[in-house]
Formats: sequence, C-alpha cells, structure tokens
Amino acid sequence: MNSFGRLFRVTVFGESHGDCVGINIDGCPAGLPLAPDDFLPDLGRRQGGTRKGTTPRKEDDLPIFRSGLFNQTTTGAPITILFENANTRSGDYEKQRAVPRPGHADFVAHRKFGGFEDYRGGGAFSARLTVGIVAAGVIAKKLMGDTIRVLAEVIEIAGEQDPEKGLQRAIDAKDSVGGIVECRVSGLPVGLGEPFFDSVESLLAHAALAIPAVRGVEFGTGFAAARMFGSQHNDAIEDMSGRTRTNHAGGVVGGLSNGNELVYRIAIKPTSSTPREQLTLNWETEQLERFSVKGRHDLCVALRAPVILEAMTALILTDLLMLERHIPRIWSRNDRT
Amino acid sequence: MNSFGRLFRVTVFGESHGDCVGINIDGCPAGLPLAPDDFLPDLGRRQGGTRKGTTPRKEDDLPIFRSGLFNQTTTGAPITILFENANTRSGDYEKQRAVPRPGHADFVAHRKFGGFEDYRGGGAFSARLTVGIVAAGVIAKKLMGDTIRVLAEVIEIAGEQDPEKGLQRAIDAKDSVGGIVECRVSGLPVGLGEPFFDSVESLLAHAALAIPAVRGVEFGTGFAAARMFGSQHNDAIEDMSGRTRTNHAGGVVGGLSNGNELVYRIAIKPTSSTPREQLTLNWETEQLERFSVKGRHDLCVALRAPVILEAMTALILTDLLMLERHIPRIWSRNDRT
Amino acid sequence: MNSFGRLFRVTVFGESHGDCVGINIDGCPAGLPLAPDDFLPDLGRRQGGTRKGTTPRKEDDLPIFRSGLFNQTTTGAPITILFENANTRSGDYEKQRAVPRPGHADFVAHRKFGGFEDYRGGGAFSARLTVGIVAAGVIAKKLMGDTIRVLAEVIEIAGEQDPEKGLQRAIDAKDSVGGIVECRVSGLPVGLGEPFFDSVESLLAHAALAIPAVRGVEFGTGFAAARMFGSQHNDAIEDMSGRTRTNHAGGVVGGLSNGNELVYRIAIKPTSSTPREQLTLNWETEQLERFSVKGRHDLCVALRAPVILEAMTALILTDLLMLERHIPRIWSRNDRT
Amino acid sequence: MNSFGRLFRVTVFGESHGDCVGINIDGCPAGLPLAPDDFLPDLGRRQGGTRKGTTPRKEDDLPIFRSGLFNQTTTGAPITILFENANTRSGDYEKQRAVPRPGHADFVAHRKFGGFEDYRGGGAFSARLTVGIVAAGVIAKKLMGDTIRVLAEVIEIAGEQDPEKGLQRAIDAKDSVGGIVECRVSGLPVGLGEPFFDSVESLLAHAALAIPAVRGVEFGTGFAAARMFGSQHNDAIEDMSGRTRTNHAGGVVGGLSNGNELVYRIAIKPTSSTPREQLTLNWETEQLERFSVKGRHDLCVALRAPVILEAMTALILTDLLMLERHIPRIWSRNDRT
Repeated sequence: MNSFGRLFRVTVFGESHGDCVGINIDGCPAGLPLAPDDFLPDLGRRQGGTRKGTTPRKEDDLPIFRSGLFNQTTTGAPITILFENANTRSGDYEKQRAVPRPGHADFVAHRKFGGFEDYRGGGAFSARLTVGIVAAGVIAKKLMGDTIRVLAEVIEIAGEQDPEKGLQRAIDAKDSVGGIVECRVSGLPVGLGEPFFDSVESLLAHAALAIPAVRGVEFGTGFAAARMFGSQHNDAIEDMSGRTRTNHAGGVVGGLSNGNELVYRIAIKPTSSTPREQLTLNWETEQLERFSVKGRHDLCVALRAPVILEAMTALILTDLLMLERHIPRIWSRNDRT
Repeated sequence: MNSFGRLFRVTVFGESHGDCVGINIDGCPAGLPLAPDDFLPDLGRRQGGTRKGTTPRKEDDLPIFRSGLFNQTTTGAPITILFENANTRSGDYEKQRAVPRPGHADFVAHRKFGGFEDYRGGGAFSARLTVGIVAAGVIAKKLMGDTIRVLAEVIEIAGEQDPEKGLQRAIDAKDSVGGIVECRVSGLPVGLGEPFFDSVESLLAHAALAIPAVRGVEFGTGFAAARMFGSQHNDAIEDMSGRTRTNHAGGVVGGLSNGNELVYRIAIKPTSSTPREQLTLNWETEQLERFSVKGRHDLCVALRAPVILEAMTALILTDLLMLERHIPRIWSRNDRT
Repeated sequence: MNSFGRLFRVTVFGESHGDCVGINIDGCPAGLPLAPDDFLPDLGRRQGGTRKGTTPRKEDDLPIFRSGLFNQTTTGAPITILFENANTRSGDYEKQRAVPRPGHADFVAHRKFGGFEDYRGGGAFSARLTVGIVAAGVIAKKLMGDTIRVLAEVIEIAGEQDPEKGLQRAIDAKDSVGGIVECRVSGLPVGLGEPFFDSVESLLAHAALAIPAVRGVEFGTGFAAARMFGSQHNDAIEDMSGRTRTNHAGGVVGGLSNGNELVYRIAIKPTSSTPREQLTLNWETEQLERFSVKGRHDLCVALRAPVILEAMTALILTDLLMLERHIPRIWSRNDRT
Repeated sequence: MNSFGRLFRVTVFGESHGDCVGINIDGCPAGLPLAPDDFLPDLGRRQGGTRKGTTPRKEDDLPIFRSGLFNQTTTGAPITILFENANTRSGDYEKQRAVPRPGHADFVAHRKFGGFEDYRGGGAFSARLTVGIVAAGVIAKKLMGDTIRVLAEVIEIAGEQDPEKGLQRAIDAKDSVGGIVECRVSGLPVGLGEPFFDSVESLLAHAALAIPAVRGVEFGTGFAAARMFGSQHNDAIEDMSGRTRTNHAGGVVGGLSNGNELVYRIAIKPTSSTPREQLTLNWETEQLERFSVKGRHDLCVALRAPVILEAMTALILTDLLMLERHIPRIWSRNDRT
C-alpha cells in the first residue's frame, strides 16, 4: 500500500491538485534536530521551474511539520510533514476527463477505483507525491551521518551522456525524452540486507520502481553482466575489510552489502506528457481521437529524479542500518551530525 | 526477512547441505486439489543434471507435504512442503572454509552472522532454496487458472540469442556465462497493483531480485525506453478493454496492470563458480591466493532460471489477484482448474 | 508502532499540546461519501466539557480532511484527517517537568526517548490521540453498513451499575474512579477472524488495550467462565445459521465469529490524574515529594471510552470483513449506506 | 494469519491428526547453542498423560530440527522444528463429522473453509499446535538470559485456589472446569513496548488470546482496578530506577514496561470436551441431538496452560528486547547463557 519500511517506516498521501501532499515517518530516533533549512536544498533540487526542460509549475514546497517535533527536535513519535498545493490549475484536467492520457495512469486508475479517483493532474499517481519522499530522505540522510554518502546523478538523457545535448534533442523534436540516473553510496558497512526476500537489491528496486516513470533497475554491471564470463565478472577480495579489486557487483553480493561502493542505475521513460499530438480513446464516445496535452510538464522527468532516487535509497539504507544497529535509537549531541 | 506476500504469503527455509529445504505457504484458499504430480513438471524444469551446462548434482526433488492438506486438498491452513537433501558432498566445502569464493556470499555471510552461518554449499544463500519457490509457484499457477498464463524463457546466453551457441562459448572458454530471461503473462485483468509502494513493477522486481544471481530487471522496453521519444514510447489505447496498439509499457502503467501482456526481463550474472582459477583472500593467512572451485556447478544458472522467475511472478500476481478478489477464498469444483 | 490493520490500515500521530492530532487511513474503498456531519455525533460523544466528571478542556474537534477525498467522496487513496489543538495550556506542564506524574507515562517515556519526548499533557501518550481513532471508526461503521451495529456503553463506574451514583462517589471522595465498558456487535457473519494469531479476540484485545487506561479485556462470560463447568459454559447450536441457545462464548468460538452477538468488556483504571495529593519522585532532586495534579482532567475516563471502544471495534471488524470480502472494494450508490 | 512478531517472528503450522505440527522461527540471532535437552523440560510441562486431569493422549514430543541449526548452533537462518503426530485416533472424529461439538471450532471452521478443513481432532484449531509455541518459547527464554525470569502458574481451578481441590470438583461432577493462570516476569528493563498500537499489554494480550480456550486477560490489578480510587491505584515511584512502592500497574504504564515486575492473568474456560452429554445440531439431519464427546481430553486445560503462556510471553518480550537492542544480533560465548 502507501507505506514502506520495517523500523523506519514512511506513509505517503495527498494528491497533485488536492489540498496538499505529505508524508508520515514512523520509527525515527528521538533527539535528531530538524529545521526547515535542512530540507530546502534537496527540495529545491526536486523542484521544476528554474531549469530548462522542467515544468513551469512552481510550488513553494515549504515543509510544514505537524507532528513528531518538539523544540525543533524529533521526539520518537511519528513525524508528519505537509506541503500545501497552491499552484494548481485543475480546469485543464476537467476538460479532458473522458480522454485518458497515453502513458498515464488515467485509464487504469479509472477502472481500479470505479471512477472515484481524483483525476486532476494524476491525483494520487502524480510525481508530486515524491516531495514527501524527498523530505523523508533528508531525515534519513541525517541519520546515516557523514561517513555514508548517497549521491545520484543523471548519466544519460535521450541517449546522450551530456544532459544538455540530450535535452536539446527533445527541444528540437518538440517531444519528451527519457534518461538514466545512477546512484552511488560510499561508506556502507559490510552485511546490510536481510535474508532471501529482503536483499539489498530487492529493497532498493522495490523503492526505485515506486518512483513514477522508472522502468528498470540494475546493480553494478547490471544487464552487461549477462554478457561477461564469470572469471571477468567476479570481484577478487583484496583485504580483510572486504575491499575488492574491481566492483562489478556494485557493492552487493548474496543480497548483502560487501563494504564496497554501492552502485545502481534506473531507466526513466520519456515523459508521458509530450508536446506532440497523440492518438487515444475517448471513453464517452468510445472512439479514437487526436489528443494534445494540456497542463505544465517536464520535457524530461529524469532531470528531477536524482534527488528522489537518493531519498528512496536513504530510506531503505536507514532501515537496514537500524536493523543492524548502526544508527542509535536515541540521537545525542555526540552523534554524527 | 524470509517471508513475502500479503494475503498469499510464503516463507522459505533450509540450507543447501542441511537436512532439507522447504517452504510454508499461508493464505492459500481451501479446496484446491494438490497432488505430487502437479509439481513434477516445474520441479523438473528447475533441476540440473539432464542438460548440458547445468550442475551434475542430482536431487529427487519430491515434494513432501507436511501440513495444510487433507484428502489431497488444501484446507485453508498453512501448507508446509519439504524437499530432502540427499546428494550432498560437504567435504568439498570444509577444505576451503578460510577462502571465501569470489562472487559468492561466503565473505559477507561470515561477517553478518559472526562465523555461525552454515557455509556448506552456500548454506541458506544457496539457489537450492528456490526449489520451494517453484513448488509455491505451482500452487499459485493453479490458483490463477487457465486464462492467465505465465511463461518465461531464456532469450540470451553469453550475448547469443541461441542458448546452445551461448553455452558453447562457455565450454570453449572453460568459463561460466550469464544470460537474460524474459517473462510474459497474458490474461491479466486491468487494475492489479497497489498504490505507490506496491506497484506491480515494485513487487515483481522485489521478488525477482531475491533470486540468486539476478542483477537487473526491466519492464516493457525497459532501459531502451530511456532513449525513446515520448511520442514513440506511449502506447495508444485502442478500445474500452484498454488494449493498446503497441506495448512498450510491458503491460504496466502507473504501477497497475493495464490489461495488455505483462513483459519483463531479468539479467543473470555468470555463475560465480567458474572452472577457471581465480584470486581471492585467505582469511586465516590474510594473504591473497590462487583458488579453484570445488563442488558441482552450473556453467550458466540462467538456464534454470525461467521456471523460478515464473514461480516468483505467479506468487506476486496471485497475491494481487486475491487483493482484487479475482481468486475465490474457497475453491470449488466449478472453479478454473 | 503507530499503525494497525491489514487491508484497512490506520496510522495515528500528533501530540496533546502540539499543533494537531490526526490519523491516516489506508485501504478505504473508493466511492464512500463522507461529510463532516457524519463525524460530529461520535466526536461529540468522545468530547469532555459538557458532562459531569469529564475534563473542562474543550476543543472544537472539527475533522479537517487533507487527503483521500474528492467531491466529498473517498477516492481509494489514503485519507488524512487532522484535528487542530487550540485549547492548550502547556505552562501547567513546564512547571512540573522534573516530577513524573504517578500512573502516567512521564517516567517511562523520559527513559525510552532520552528526554526528547514532548511531555506537555502526555504528548503522544495522551488520550487526545483517540480523536483520530473515533474519526476512523466513523468511516469503518459506514463501511459495515446498517445490518451490523456496534454499540458500547458504560456498565459500571466505581463499582456501581448506575454511572451517576458511581461518579458521585468520586466527587464525594475528591478522587478519580474507574469503570467497565461493554461492547456489543450484532449482525456479524459467521467466520470472521483469521487462523491462530489473528483470532477475533486477539485483534480486538490488541486494539482495546491500545486505548489509554484500559487494563483488561474479556469476551462473553470472560473471567467468570473460569468458574463454570463445561456443560454450563458450552453454547448449544440450535439451527443451521449457527444461532446458539445461550451466548457464553460472546460470539467467538475457535477465534472466529459464530454469528451470534459479539460481546466483550474492558476494565478502565481510575484516571491517573486524581485531585488528591500524591507522593512521587523528583528526578532532579532525586527525592520523594508531595505532588498535586495541575491541568484539566476527567474524574472518570471510562465515561468517554464507549465511543472509542466502538471505533476500535469497527476498525478491526472492517478489516476482517474486507478480508472475507463482505465489504466491496468500490462503494456504489446501491451499497448499504 | 499464522505468523507473529516483528524482528523475532514465528509461524505455526500443522494439524492435530495430520503428519505433524511445527513452527518456523525467523530472526533468531546466530550463535545460540540449542540441543534437544533444552526443550524437554518445557515440552514435558505442556504434555498430558502424567497428571490427573490431563488427556491420556501421549506424544513423545521430541523436537526435530529441520533448518537453521549447524553444529547444534543457530545460524541466523530460519529455524524449523517439527513434532511428529504418532498417537492419533482419527476414527473417533470421522463418526461424528456431522455433529459440531459445542464450544469447539467445528461449526465455524466448516463454514469458513467450505467443508475442506481438516476436522480430525480440531485440525489446525487444536491446542496441539501450541507445542511449537512452547519450543519457540524455549529459544526466546534462552535469548532473554538469566536476569529476566518468566514464570506462570495456575492460581485458580474451578474457583478454588488449590488446583487439586478444583480438579476434584470436576471429577465429582463428571464435568470439565476452567481456571486462571498468572504470569510474572522479573528483570525487565524500563521502556519496552512501542507507541500506541504495540503497547506491551496489546502485544501480550494478542498472543495470549491466540491460545485456545483463553477468554480474558488482565494486567496488574486488572478488572479490580475499575473499582479503585485513583489515589489508591497509582503506584508511587520511589527511586531513579523507577521502582514503585506498590505494583497495581503490573509493571506497565503508558503501554511501556516500567522496570517493576510484569504481572498479568488469563481466564481459561472449562474444556469444551466435557464428559457430560450435551445438546447440539446435526447438520445433516438439521435436527438437535444428544451428543457425547469421543476422543481423549483434559478435564481442565488450564493445567497445561502455564508453560504455553510463558512461551507466548517470552516470544513477545524477546521481540521487544530485540527492538530495544537488549539482545545481541550475534550471540557469543560471553553472552548470558
């Protein structure tokens, strides 16, 4: 459902054009100082409006803390953070109610929820819900401390390694494009991950594929590993810390972190809302018709994805670090902030 | 941990060279007839020994039902199925205890479990545990009925589309190789999948990446989608059933099944146990040393993966079908067996 | 943690003297009409201020819907309901910070959360959090429809069957008192409850004992059953509907509902905040000292408990009814509202 | 369903007259030595046959370890323990198939599972399944170490404080009787229990009410608290360890352990299988008929309940101790065995 995590558990809620979106975080250790300023850098990275290729919809995205904080410090009780929706233009969506947008959840949501879904701007299926994920990710990153660093970046847009070049292809073609984002985590201890179903890969992939528009995930050499010989792919362990000479495994062996850099990538499809005219069904007339996207949209959602992927990664790793007791139950001044 | 599923829930247990491996299935509807013969075809597909490139270790793999059946029919109580381990040669492993095999879980398991892990043949990390998964998959497939068909196959070995050709490359190089397996499911209703975290992709990827040696997963056009334009990638809905003209989405939009064929692929790394000599650490001497694999192993584990991927897929989809009430709580003679 | 339920899942949050308290409800079927007026009767029953023996603290307790509704109807997405805290007087608590109130969570919370807990008015341990439970209970009651009726009432205060008489004892003694609340549910189908750990009794007791001040729970004849003979206690089944001649079982046999009236009771301790002076520890001076309660409190919390117990009962039964598919996944005009 | 616990998680399975009963334990720390002899004392206490008032059915109840142990030590992988059913007389049950036994699950199970349930000896509803619980309890007790002691005993049979006297009443009346069992735990740290839904009382009651025949649970003074004044019931904290002058709370305040002795009681109904003739429905003839119990039964199941209640208590507390990190993830020779 809308929750994930065992000891550090998040629940997302809200709709694109409803009152607000938000997140509830259960299991955060008491004693962690949190101020709005902690959140602004990552929330800013997620936002559109300032960069070529991202949506002109502009929200302030100020985190409003509604529970779980006292004297700007976590209490151990569940933390609720809201983000108001101010800049909505739902009229755009009302007009096209009977025409499910290709590539979007409109048709399947309508069927699953019997027509009661909030269809404005994708409703609960909107990428706007990831703002709460980013906020939870900020908390998770603080809990992980300075020795563990999570960093994601766009490594390819529209097949080009240079994002600017990739984006120009979209602008030239008056179309939307996709891309690939890579996440790297250094400083992890050996042995994170739980047996069988809760391998590090399983959990990270579960979370990554919950991000809208993600269509694939691969660890280390990933799909390319399928074309290597075993003697090439195996990473030789070099010392008692577990450091390996190569890192084809991307830091995960047998489902557990092996102490080397965690490396994984996600594939992001081209934005479903393309400027080009498309064909789709009108479910009132039951006829195919030409369709043009209304609303404000990104040409390439991959550009905003790195900070979301970092957040998801931080949520999962924080949960695993808590299971292995690398994060204290009660934060203290001496801890690694 | 070792369990997965919400309404149809499996728990795996056992070790490669212990007494047995097995599975517990909680939430199976009452009234489903089950006989050992139902299991033999899929268990046979998982087995090695009869086919070039698979391990000569040969187990009978007869399912032994220890609970949950009465008059060869499910009762609604949890089903426990055991598979005895008979054909073990643990001596091979005792000798190499201090030398973690490259690519295997030996090192990380040793660190995580403080040296208490059953290291013989990979212990609880062994692919032998997938025999229970295949057995649970047989039950799940029966519950899904005849109109839903799950079929996985090897589509690439060592970079070759012809598996025989791919395997010959391994034999020639005296090395192990990897491959790609594709799973297709037809007959699914629209609307499977749960909001946000329990998207169809999230759940299938979670389960698929729990299979040993899997390093990536992609849905529909997957990683190639990152290089397409939006107008190319979007699938135009053609009729009220949700059928689309193309199927780049691989049957999942907005995290929900859209009524088209579900298509996804996994990347499998080359078998870690390669016949070639490798370098690794000896944790007693703390020196690097030359290492040669003992034991009996597959040249390419991808060959045995399709039936395991089908089983994982069937487990996840059965759970989602039960959540959407497409599978009855009590099976009856009139149901789709 | 702060969540409960499998298919109909609630998460509570907030603090007594923080910004607000609230609840998140995940898994509510789409299509259920909800208006503030639906909530006011039960919220009013929970409130103090209007009745002898309940706290003079008066909150408006207007439900503020922040997600999950569209056109005053549920969408299938998670519902978030907030209740603002307006009428707080935290100063009373600041003064007594070092003196844990006897019977309250002050001491244990301080130890568990390292002093970071919001201690004002009991913080997250306050009975104020039950306002969200009551709101979720309203939704659950609507989902259960008209044929299932949940009714709880005070059957004893301070040992008196007449609540007024019981309360007068408290007033006369200038002390707080406890009581017993009984909950009855008619119209339940046979077979609710899940095997072994999720018996109807287990789930109801779990939820009931999460209500502050509850110290015991008993089903049917309960503790008195321990003094009966088997031939007296057994209820003879009279017809094919499962109706029994007597109802000593209180409607639950083998952990499953048996189609008769569900009957259970909870014991509520006297309010910890008594007007009488008490002895407790001052953890700054580490000395025992005389202590007098500040703040506004109920003489008998049992008076406000019936609607909370009804709500908890409705939450659990709705979850079980959904598991048994007695409540539709999508509400429609024709359903039993 | 058939599982319980967050970090220390058990799954029960099996049937009274099937092949076996058993338990799977997931999350047990690696490195704990376990031998059959550890289990025999508690398994012996649970058994009937040697004591007046308990069933003459005699099983060896030898634990058979099928997974999770290596060199008689836990490995961190899930532990599976089976108990063979040898001494079954199912014929007794076949004859009475159409006559649901009063007080038993026969009728409700038949309805819930559509007639597919294993009805022999109560099938999956039999108290025989508690043998696995007792085995898991032995492991939990070892993990809790010597400083924490769990002790349950019968404090009342048939209303008599002297069990022998109570049992004699049953023998004289040729009827079955019930009783009350009290569980006390010393040595617990302050702060066990999780917020709101996972209070210590909620979890213990959940588990206790999963034991067949339990109809009520109360903590500390329990139902008697409802008749006390607040100034009487409140326990004055005496020192910085949290020790209180009295212990009316039974060691739990605000849902958290307070460092004093945990005290709680359960009410057990008289055995449903009484020697006296009873009235029930025959669902083939749809007529009421006289009914006499076949099979071998306890006159008073409360006599065997203490060790089962201890086990359930130990399971819950071990899980909470692991959440608070009082039990190591890896057991070592130096730990408190």
